[in-house]
Amino acid sequence: MSSYATQTSTDVNKSETTSLIAASKVNGTSVYNRQGESLGSIHDVMLNKRSGQISYAVMSFGGFLGLGEKYHPVPWNKLTYDEQYAGYVIDLDKRRLEGAPAYAASDTPDWANGTYGGTIDRYYDGITTI
Amino acid sequence: MSSYATQTSTDVNKSETTSLIAASKVNGTSVYNRQGESLGSIHDVMLNKRSGQISYAVMSFGGFLGLGEKYHPVPWNKLTYDEQYAGYVIDLDKRRLEGAPAYAASDTPDWANGTYGGTIDRYYDGITTI
Repeated sequence: MSSYATQTSTDVNKSETTSLIAASKVNGTSVYNRQGESLGSIHDVMLNKRSGQISYAVMSFGGFLGLGEKYHPVPWNKLTYDEQYAGYVIDLDKRRLEGAPAYAASDTPDWANGTYGGTIDRYYDGITTI
Repeated sequence: MSSYATQTSTDVNKSETTSLIAASKVNGTSVYNRQGESLGSIHDVMLNKRSGQISYAVMSFGGFLGLGEKYHPVPWNKLTYDEQYAGYVIDLDKRRLEGAPAYAASDTPDWANGTYGGTIDRYYDGITTI
């Protein structure tokens, strides 16, 4: 699939050689839906700084939606790593993305406000992990 | 403690306002020992790309040891986040650091080789989590 070529070779090599990946390399990894369409890439991940567990992947869909850079936080447990794609897969169609919680690249969401994460969790609640 | 001033205000603000922190902000967070001595900072974190759990913090002690930039992978579960320090604390003295597994900034360890992580785990096995 030609869209795979958009991944950096570094990400691909890392993902093929080990189950461990540097956080700095996760950023930029491509995300696909069940149909193999590229949905965008991971801009950053939100970690629980005590447990060290990723809570949310902050995905960048700007390129795909053509609406300028926007960040969509997605619950990490909805993403599944796929060796074949050397990227993450989520059962999400492009239409649903358009209504998903998002913020402009120039903004910073109020993660300290517990209701923010809750809003994200509820939006993706119906998504089945692949 | 004056060494706290070496942290970026961004890291401090993030850590004080929420238990969630962007992976890109974890990098650079200071690490202290039980005596409050600055041991260095987090250069990067190694994630299990499936579970999204941090396995190792890659710490930079170059500045402190004065031996040029060297990276020391430390098992994540040995680090404890401390709100007072707005950083991580580990029960590790500077001497023990000098003998710890490390690699030069120009190298990349063979994370794919399971024995590498095992070597790190064994070295820090005696360290009690604070």
